[in-house]
Amino acid sequence: MTRSSDTKERLITGALELVSERSYANVGVQELCEYAGAKKGSFYYFFKSKQDLMLKALEHQAQAMNNMILMPAFSSKLAPLKRIEQMFNLTYQYQKSIKEKTGRVGGCFFGNLALELSTQDELIRHRLDIIFNRQLKLIKQCLEEAVTAGHLSEIDIQLTAEAILAYWEGTILFSKVRNEPEMLKSLAKGVRELVIKKPK
Amino acid sequence: MTRSSDTKERLITGALELVSERSYANVGVQELCEYAGAKKGSFYYFFKSKQDLMLKALEHQAQAMNNMILMPAFSSKLAPLKRIEQMFNLTYQYQKSIKEKTGRVGGCFFGNLALELSTQDELIRHRLDIIFNRQLKLIKQCLEEAVTAGHLSEIDIQLTAEAILAYWEGTILFSKVRNEPEMLKSLAKGVRELVIKKPK
Repeated sequence: MTRSSDTKERLITGALELVSERSYANVGVQELCEYAGAKKGSFYYFFKSKQDLMLKALEHQAQAMNNMILMPAFSSKLAPLKRIEQMFNLTYQYQKSIKEKTGRVGGCFFGNLALELSTQDELIRHRLDIIFNRQLKLIKQCLEEAVTAGHLSEIDIQLTAEAILAYWEGTILFSKVRNEPEMLKSLAKGVRELVIKKPK
Repeated sequence: MTRSSDTKERLITGALELVSERSYANVGVQELCEYAGAKKGSFYYFFKSKQDLMLKALEHQAQAMNNMILMPAFSSKLAPLKRIEQMFNLTYQYQKSIKEKTGRVGGCFFGNLALELSTQDELIRHRLDIIFNRQLKLIKQCLEEAVTAGHLSEIDIQLTAEAILAYWEGTILFSKVRNEPEMLKSLAKGVRELVIKKPK
Protein backbone atom coordinates (compact mmCIF):
# COMPACT_ATOMS: atom_id res chain seq x y z
CA MET A 1 0.00 0.00 0.00
CA THR A 2 1.37 3.43 -0.86
CA ARG A 3 1.00 6.01 1.82
CA SER A 4 1.11 9.66 1.01
CA SER A 5 3.74 11.33 3.15
CA ASP A 6 1.25 13.69 4.71
CA THR A 7 -1.31 11.03 5.71
CA LYS A 8 -0.01 10.91 9.28
CA GLU A 9 -0.18 14.69 9.53
CA ARG A 10 -3.71 14.73 8.11
CA LEU A 11 -4.86 12.10 10.61
CA ILE A 12 -3.40 14.15 13.48
CA THR A 13 -4.89 17.48 12.43
CA GLY A 14 -8.17 15.76 11.52
CA ALA A 15 -8.33 14.24 15.01
CA LEU A 16 -7.70 17.66 16.56
CA GLU A 17 -10.47 19.20 14.48
CA LEU A 18 -13.09 16.51 15.01
CA VAL A 19 -12.40 16.00 18.71
CA SER A 20 -12.45 19.80 19.24
CA GLU A 21 -15.82 20.07 17.53
CA ARG A 22 -17.33 17.15 19.41
CA SER A 23 -15.52 14.94 21.91
CA TYR A 24 -13.04 12.07 22.04
CA ALA A 25 -15.73 9.44 22.67
CA ASN A 26 -17.80 10.83 19.82
CA VAL A 27 -15.19 10.37 17.10
CA GLY A 28 -14.38 6.92 15.75
CA VAL A 29 -11.41 5.62 13.76
CA GLN A 30 -13.58 4.93 10.70
CA GLU A 31 -14.92 8.49 10.59
CA LEU A 32 -11.49 9.91 11.23
CA CYS A 33 -10.04 7.99 8.29
CA GLU A 34 -12.83 9.22 6.01
CA TYR A 35 -12.33 12.80 7.22
CA ALA A 36 -8.58 12.63 6.63
CA GLY A 37 -8.92 10.75 3.35
CA ALA A 38 -6.86 7.85 4.73
CA LYS A 39 -7.33 4.09 4.56
CA LYS A 40 -7.75 2.14 7.81
CA GLY A 41 -4.53 0.27 6.97
CA SER A 42 -2.68 3.58 6.93
CA PHE A 43 -4.18 4.53 10.26
CA TYR A 44 -2.89 1.37 11.89
CA TYR A 45 0.45 1.74 10.11
CA PHE A 46 1.00 5.06 11.86
CA PHE A 47 -0.90 4.56 15.13
CA LYS A 48 -1.51 1.63 17.44
CA SER A 49 -4.96 2.88 18.42
CA LYS A 50 -7.17 5.96 18.73
CA GLN A 51 -5.51 6.54 22.11
CA ASP A 52 -2.06 6.44 20.48
CA LEU A 53 -3.18 8.96 17.84
CA MET A 54 -4.58 11.21 20.58
CA LEU A 55 -1.31 11.15 22.55
CA LYS A 56 0.52 12.31 19.40
CA ALA A 57 -2.17 14.86 18.62
CA LEU A 58 -1.75 16.28 22.14
CA GLU A 59 1.97 16.90 21.55
CA HIS A 60 1.14 18.43 18.17
CA GLN A 61 -1.39 20.78 19.78
CA ALA A 62 0.99 21.62 22.63
CA GLN A 63 3.54 22.70 20.02
CA ALA A 64 0.91 24.79 18.22
CA MET A 65 -0.12 26.51 21.48
CA ASN A 66 3.54 27.16 22.23
CA ASN A 67 4.04 28.83 18.86
CA MET A 68 0.79 30.76 18.91
CA ILE A 69 0.34 31.82 22.53
CA LEU A 70 3.00 30.82 25.05
CA MET A 71 6.19 31.77 23.23
CA PRO A 72 4.86 35.09 21.88
CA ALA A 73 3.67 35.95 25.41
CA PHE A 74 6.57 34.68 27.52
CA SER A 75 9.42 35.58 25.17
CA SER A 76 8.14 39.11 24.69
CA LYS A 77 9.89 42.24 25.91
CA LEU A 78 6.94 43.04 28.16
CA ALA A 79 7.38 43.34 31.93
CA PRO A 80 7.03 39.86 33.52
CA LEU A 81 3.50 40.32 34.88
CA LYS A 82 2.35 41.84 31.60
CA ARG A 83 3.49 38.67 29.83
CA ILE A 84 0.99 36.64 31.83
CA GLU A 85 -1.76 39.08 30.89
CA GLN A 86 -0.59 38.77 27.30
CA MET A 87 -1.14 34.99 27.53
CA PHE A 88 -4.82 35.77 28.18
CA ASN A 89 -5.00 38.37 25.42
CA LEU A 90 -3.50 36.01 22.85
CA THR A 91 -5.90 33.29 24.00
CA TYR A 92 -8.71 35.77 23.35
CA GLN A 93 -7.40 36.41 19.82
CA TYR A 94 -7.15 32.68 19.18
CA GLN A 95 -10.63 31.80 20.48
CA LYS A 96 -12.07 34.77 18.59
CA SER A 97 -10.53 33.47 15.36
CA ILE A 98 -12.01 30.00 16.01
CA LYS A 99 -15.43 31.53 16.59
CA GLU A 100 -15.16 33.52 13.37
CA LYS A 101 -14.40 30.29 11.50
CA THR A 102 -16.81 27.86 13.18
CA GLY A 103 -19.38 30.04 14.97
CA ARG A 104 -18.25 28.59 18.31
CA VAL A 105 -15.62 29.26 20.96
CA GLY A 106 -13.78 25.93 20.87
CA GLY A 107 -12.18 26.17 24.29
CA CYS A 108 -8.84 24.72 25.35
CA PHE A 109 -8.14 21.37 23.73
CA PHE A 110 -6.26 20.22 26.84
CA GLY A 111 -8.96 21.39 29.24
CA ASN A 112 -11.68 19.78 27.14
CA LEU A 113 -9.88 16.46 27.04
CA ALA A 114 -8.90 16.71 30.71
CA LEU A 115 -12.51 16.94 31.79
CA GLU A 116 -13.67 14.27 29.39
CA LEU A 117 -10.95 11.70 30.01
CA SER A 118 -9.12 12.25 33.32
CA THR A 119 -11.25 9.70 35.14
CA GLN A 120 -11.12 7.18 32.29
CA ASP A 121 -7.76 7.16 30.58
CA GLU A 122 -4.69 7.23 32.79
CA LEU A 123 -2.21 7.58 29.91
CA ILE A 124 -3.97 10.62 28.47
CA ARG A 125 -4.47 12.14 31.94
CA HIS A 126 -0.76 11.73 32.61
CA ARG A 127 0.21 13.34 29.28
CA LEU A 128 -2.12 16.26 29.98
CA ASP A 129 -0.54 16.65 33.42
CA ILE A 130 2.89 16.86 31.75
CA ILE A 131 1.66 19.50 29.28
CA PHE A 132 0.04 21.57 32.05
CA ASN A 133 3.25 21.28 34.11
CA ARG A 134 5.26 22.73 31.23
CA GLN A 135 2.87 25.70 31.12
CA LEU A 136 3.16 25.99 34.89
CA LYS A 137 6.95 26.18 34.56
CA LEU A 138 6.71 29.12 32.16
CA ILE A 139 4.43 30.99 34.55
CA LYS A 140 6.71 30.22 37.50
CA GLN A 141 9.79 31.51 35.65
CA CYS A 142 7.89 34.66 34.84
CA LEU A 143 6.87 35.16 38.48
CA GLU A 144 10.46 34.56 39.60
CA GLU A 145 11.60 37.28 37.20
CA ALA A 146 8.95 39.60 38.62
CA VAL A 147 10.28 38.93 42.13
CA THR A 148 13.89 39.51 41.03
CA ALA A 149 12.85 42.75 39.33
CA GLY A 150 11.19 43.85 42.60
CA HIS A 151 7.66 43.90 41.16
CA LEU A 152 6.46 41.25 43.62
CA SER A 153 7.51 40.14 47.08
CA GLU A 154 6.53 37.59 49.73
CA ILE A 155 4.81 35.59 47.03
CA ASP A 156 4.17 31.83 47.07
CA ILE A 157 5.39 31.24 43.52
CA GLN A 158 4.24 27.63 43.11
CA LEU A 159 0.74 28.30 44.42
CA THR A 160 0.37 31.57 42.49
CA ALA A 161 1.42 29.88 39.24
CA GLU A 162 -1.12 27.09 39.84
CA ALA A 163 -3.80 29.67 40.60
CA ILE A 164 -3.05 31.56 37.38
CA LEU A 165 -3.13 28.39 35.28
CA ALA A 166 -6.42 27.32 36.92
CA TYR A 167 -7.85 30.79 36.30
CA TRP A 168 -6.75 30.63 32.67
CA GLU A 169 -8.54 27.31 32.13
CA GLY A 170 -11.60 28.55 34.02
CA THR A 171 -11.90 31.71 31.93
CA ILE A 172 -11.62 29.65 28.73
CA LEU A 173 -14.34 27.32 30.06
CA PHE A 174 -16.67 30.26 30.66
CA SER A 175 -16.03 31.87 27.33
CA LYS A 176 -16.93 28.49 25.81
CA VAL A 177 -20.19 28.12 27.79
CA ARG A 178 -21.20 31.68 26.92
CA ASN A 179 -19.74 31.41 23.43
CA GLU A 180 -18.18 34.83 24.08
CA PRO A 181 -14.43 35.13 23.48
CA GLU A 182 -14.64 38.68 24.89
CA MET A 183 -14.89 37.21 28.41
CA LEU A 184 -11.23 36.26 28.10
CA LYS A 185 -10.29 39.86 27.44
CA SER A 186 -12.29 41.32 30.31
CA LEU A 187 -11.29 38.60 32.80
CA ALA A 188 -7.59 38.99 31.91
CA LYS A 189 -7.58 41.88 34.40
CA GLY A 190 -8.12 39.39 37.22
CA VAL A 191 -4.68 37.95 36.74
CA ARG A 192 -3.13 41.18 38.06
CA GLU A 193 -4.78 40.46 41.40
CA LEU A 194 -4.20 36.74 41.62
CA VAL A 195 -1.05 36.84 43.72
CA ILE A 196 -0.94 34.45 46.67
CA LYS A 197 1.32 35.50 49.55
CA LYS A 198 3.59 33.17 51.48
CA PRO A 199 2.11 32.14 54.79
CA LYS A 200 3.65 34.22 57.60
CA MET B 1 -46.44 -1.95 31.81
CA THR B 2 -46.03 -1.22 35.50
CA ARG B 3 -43.43 1.34 36.32
CA SER B 4 -41.91 1.45 39.75
CA SER B 5 -42.31 4.94 41.16
CA ASP B 6 -38.57 5.38 41.56
CA THR B 7 -37.62 4.34 38.02
CA LYS B 8 -37.42 7.96 36.86
CA GLU B 9 -35.24 8.83 39.85
CA ARG B 10 -32.98 5.82 39.21
CA LEU B 11 -32.56 6.80 35.55
CA ILE B 12 -31.60 10.35 36.56
CA THR B 13 -29.10 9.37 39.23
CA GLY B 14 -27.77 6.58 37.01
CA ALA B 15 -27.19 9.08 34.21
CA LEU B 16 -25.35 11.39 36.62
CA GLU B 17 -23.13 8.53 37.80
CA LEU B 18 -22.30 7.07 34.39
CA VAL B 19 -21.79 10.42 32.64
CA SER B 20 -19.59 11.58 35.56
CA GLU B 21 -17.45 8.48 35.29
CA ARG B 22 -17.11 8.66 31.53
CA SER B 23 -18.77 11.25 29.28
CA TYR B 24 -22.14 12.06 27.73
CA ALA B 25 -21.19 10.65 24.32
CA ASN B 26 -19.88 7.50 25.93
CA VAL B 27 -23.12 6.49 27.64
CA GLY B 28 -26.02 5.07 25.63
CA VAL B 29 -29.71 4.72 26.47
CA GLN B 30 -29.50 0.90 26.43
CA GLU B 31 -26.63 0.83 28.94
CA LEU B 32 -28.34 3.43 31.09
CA CYS B 33 -31.51 1.34 31.27
CA GLU B 34 -29.52 -1.74 32.26
CA TYR B 35 -27.62 0.24 34.90
CA ALA B 36 -30.83 1.66 36.35
CA GLY B 37 -32.71 -1.63 36.05
CA ALA B 38 -35.33 0.00 33.81
CA LYS B 39 -36.98 -1.13 30.59
CA LYS B 40 -36.51 0.95 27.45
CA GLY B 41 -40.26 1.55 27.40
CA SER B 42 -40.00 3.15 30.83
CA PHE B 43 -37.13 5.33 29.66
CA TYR B 44 -39.20 6.74 26.80
CA TYR B 45 -42.23 7.05 29.06
CA PHE B 46 -40.32 9.47 31.28
CA PHE B 47 -37.94 11.09 28.79
CA LYS B 48 -38.15 12.10 25.15
CA SER B 49 -34.48 11.36 24.53
CA LYS B 50 -31.05 11.11 26.15
CA GLN B 51 -30.83 14.89 25.81
CA ASP B 52 -34.14 15.31 27.65
CA LEU B 53 -32.91 13.05 30.47
CA MET B 54 -29.69 15.04 30.67
CA LEU B 55 -31.55 18.35 30.97
CA LYS B 56 -33.50 16.92 33.91
CA ALA B 57 -30.36 15.39 35.40
CA LEU B 58 -28.70 18.84 35.23
CA GLU B 59 -31.46 20.38 37.33
CA HIS B 60 -31.25 17.45 39.75
CA GLN B 61 -27.49 17.94 40.11
CA ALA B 62 -27.88 21.73 40.46
CA GLN B 63 -30.24 21.09 43.38
CA ALA B 64 -27.76 18.65 44.94
CA MET B 65 -24.91 21.18 44.61
CA ASN B 66 -27.15 23.82 46.16
CA ASN B 67 -27.88 21.59 49.14
CA MET B 68 -24.34 20.36 49.56
CA ILE B 69 -22.14 23.35 48.74
CA LEU B 70 -23.83 26.62 47.79
CA MET B 71 -26.47 26.96 50.50
CA PRO B 72 -24.21 25.81 53.37
CA ALA B 73 -21.57 28.31 52.16
CA PHE B 74 -23.72 31.30 51.24
CA SER B 75 -26.31 30.99 54.02
CA SER B 76 -23.66 30.62 56.70
CA LYS B 77 -22.96 33.19 59.41
CA LEU B 78 -19.44 33.70 58.05
CA ALA B 79 -18.29 37.12 56.85
CA PRO B 80 -19.24 37.57 53.16
CA LEU B 81 -15.79 36.96 51.71
CA LYS B 82 -15.27 33.95 53.95
CA ARG B 83 -18.44 32.44 52.48
CA ILE B 84 -16.84 32.40 49.04
CA GLU B 85 -13.78 30.69 50.47
CA GLN B 86 -16.13 28.25 52.17
CA MET B 87 -17.57 27.39 48.73
CA PHE B 88 -14.06 26.19 47.78
CA ASN B 89 -13.58 24.31 51.06
CA LEU B 90 -16.89 22.47 50.72
CA THR B 91 -16.01 21.64 47.12
CA TYR B 92 -12.78 20.15 48.43
CA GLN B 93 -14.73 18.03 50.94
CA TYR B 94 -17.08 16.87 48.20
CA GLN B 95 -14.36 15.96 45.67
CA LYS B 96 -12.37 14.24 48.42
CA SER B 97 -15.41 12.10 49.26
CA ILE B 98 -15.83 11.17 45.58
CA LYS B 99 -12.16 10.20 45.38
CA GLU B 100 -12.48 8.06 48.49
CA LYS B 101 -15.40 6.25 46.88
CA THR B 102 -14.20 5.92 43.27
CA GLY B 103 -10.44 6.50 43.41
CA ARG B 104 -10.88 9.58 41.20
CA VAL B 105 -11.64 13.28 41.56
CA GLY B 106 -14.82 13.49 39.50
CA GLY B 107 -14.71 17.21 38.80
CA CYS B 108 -17.67 19.53 38.36
CA PHE B 109 -20.54 17.87 36.51
CA PHE B 110 -21.47 21.20 34.90
CA GLY B 111 -17.91 22.04 33.88
CA ASN B 112 -17.37 18.55 32.47
CA LEU B 113 -20.53 18.73 30.40
CA ALA B 114 -19.86 22.33 29.38
CA LEU B 115 -16.54 21.43 27.83
CA GLU B 116 -17.88 18.28 26.21
CA LEU B 117 -21.10 19.68 24.77
CA SER B 118 -21.07 23.50 24.49
CA THR B 119 -20.07 23.39 20.85
CA GLN B 120 -22.51 20.59 20.00
CA ASP B 121 -25.74 20.90 21.91
CA GLU B 122 -27.29 24.34 22.15
CA LEU B 123 -30.07 23.29 24.54
CA ILE B 124 -27.64 21.80 27.05
CA ARG B 125 -25.23 24.73 26.65
CA HIS B 126 -28.08 27.13 27.35
CA ARG B 127 -29.19 25.19 30.45
CA LEU B 128 -25.62 25.15 31.75
CA ASP B 129 -25.41 28.90 31.18
CA ILE B 130 -28.57 29.33 33.30
CA ILE B 131 -27.13 27.17 36.10
CA PHE B 132 -23.82 29.07 36.06
CA ASN B 133 -25.73 32.36 36.10
CA ARG B 134 -27.57 31.30 39.25
CA GLN B 135 -24.22 30.57 40.91
CA LEU B 136 -22.94 33.92 39.66
CA LYS B 137 -25.90 35.64 41.31
CA LEU B 138 -25.05 34.10 44.69
CA ILE B 139 -21.46 35.30 44.42
CA LYS B 140 -22.59 38.78 43.34
CA GLN B 141 -24.97 39.09 46.31
CA CYS B 142 -22.15 38.07 48.59
CA LEU B 143 -19.79 40.67 47.09
CA GLU B 144 -22.50 43.33 47.41
CA GLU B 145 -22.82 42.48 51.09
CA ALA B 146 -19.05 42.75 51.48
CA VAL B 147 -19.18 46.22 49.91
CA THR B 148 -22.09 47.28 52.16
CA ALA B 149 -20.19 45.99 55.20
CA GLY B 150 -17.19 48.07 54.13
CA HIS B 151 -14.92 45.06 53.50
CA LEU B 152 -14.49 45.95 49.82
CA SER B 153 -14.63 49.15 47.81
CA GLU B 154 -14.24 50.34 44.22
CA ILE B 155 -14.91 46.80 43.06
CA ASP B 156 -16.35 45.75 39.70
CA ILE B 157 -18.88 43.31 41.16
CA GLN B 158 -20.00 41.65 37.92
CA LEU B 159 -16.46 41.06 36.67
CA THR B 160 -15.18 39.92 40.07
CA ALA B 161 -18.03 37.42 40.41
CA GLU B 162 -17.29 36.06 36.93
CA ALA B 163 -13.59 35.82 37.80
CA ILE B 164 -14.35 33.90 41.00
CA LEU B 165 -16.67 31.49 39.22
CA ALA B 166 -14.08 30.93 36.47
CA TYR B 167 -11.40 30.38 39.10
CA TRP B 168 -13.62 27.90 40.90
CA GLU B 169 -14.16 25.86 37.73
CA GLY B 170 -10.45 26.08 36.86
CA THR B 171 -9.33 24.83 40.26
CA ILE B 172 -11.75 21.89 40.03
CA LEU B 173 -10.38 21.14 36.55
CA PHE B 174 -6.82 21.01 37.90
CA SER B 175 -7.69 18.90 40.88
CA LYS B 176 -9.28 16.48 38.39
CA VAL B 177 -6.23 16.37 36.09
CA ARG B 178 -3.90 15.85 39.05
CA ASN B 179 -6.43 13.65 40.82
CA GLU B 180 -5.63 15.68 43.96
CA PRO B 181 -8.62 17.17 45.80
CA GLU B 182 -6.12 18.95 48.09
CA MET B 183 -5.42 21.46 45.28
CA LEU B 184 -8.87 22.90 45.93
CA LYS B 185 -7.96 23.56 49.54
CA SER B 186 -4.63 25.20 48.81
CA LEU B 187 -5.94 27.25 45.86
CA ALA B 188 -8.92 28.50 47.89
CA LYS B 189 -6.54 31.16 49.24
CA GLY B 190 -6.40 32.72 45.77
CA VAL B 191 -10.00 33.81 46.00
CA ARG B 192 -9.06 36.37 48.68
CA GLU B 193 -6.95 38.14 46.07
CA LEU B 194 -9.26 37.87 43.08
CA VAL B 195 -10.91 41.26 43.41
CA ILE B 196 -11.15 43.29 40.23
CA LYS B 197 -11.34 47.05 40.69
CA LYS B 198 -13.63 49.37 38.75
CA PRO B 199 -11.81 51.17 35.94
CA LYS B 200 -10.92 54.70 37.05
